[in-house]
Amino acid sequence: MPTQQHMKTAMQNYIDFFNGDDLEGILSLYAEDAVVEDPAGSEPVRGKAAIAEFYRKVVNGSTRIRREEPIRGSHENSGAMAVHIETKVEGATVVIHVIELMTFNDDGLITGMKAYWGQTDMETK
Amino acid sequence: MPTQQHMKTAMQNYIDFFNGDDLEGILSLYAEDAVVEDPAGSEPVRGKAAIAEFYRKVVNGSTRIRREEPIRGSHENSGAMAVHIETKVEGATVVIHVIELMTFNDDGLITGMKAYWGQTDMETK
Repeated sequence: MPTQQHMKTAMQNYIDFFNGDDLEGILSLYAEDAVVEDPAGSEPVRGKAAIAEFYRKVVNGSTRIRREEPIRGSHENSGAMAVHIETKVEGATVVIHVIELMTFNDDGLITGMKAYWGQTDMETK
Repeated sequence: MPTQQHMKTAMQNYIDFFNGDDLEGILSLYAEDAVVEDPAGSEPVRGKAAIAEFYRKVVNGSTRIRREEPIRGSHENSGAMAVHIETKVEGATVVIHVIELMTFNDDGLITGMKAYWGQTDMETK
């Protein structure tokens, strides 16, 4: 099981890579067989090739993540963080309030990312 | 599936009941077959009788929950929230940074609560 510090660093790196539009950096955090479910309740995106395609759409120079609050660990191989995701939709700035839950394998790579947000968690600035 | 608003209201009620030391109020939010895992990675507490025993220890007049950030919904029957839990341990005030994930059944009752926090998420004031 990865250490709490390892998981928290990886999650912070995820944010930093995202804000640097570093697609390869983000993908380097994921295991080959990882599953992304964003938003929670949508069809899961399975495997690194599909995950790369998913992030190619959102890592686009105008989507930015701001972390709110310290990243939380657990007593297992997972961590959670509250973030604001700001993006442009047809010229308008949309802010989504999200809580992201990430699960890691023994190699310290992300095997699961589930993003909790619903229609009521979006606001247009 | 309960509405986003129903889940968010229930989660806010959970906090308010907790801060009012209202054990019955908290238990009224839970389904009979609910499972509580606090912290995530610990042995799950299964069923309402065991859950009542669990909360009897923590709803004790000195544990308080402060919500940080809006409660998040999802596109499924779950919501998540970032909170600070303040409690007294041998005279000292301990603050734990937690993200709580709650899952609901069709009757709008909580079937699962999982609290993400690790040893590194505690601080003594």
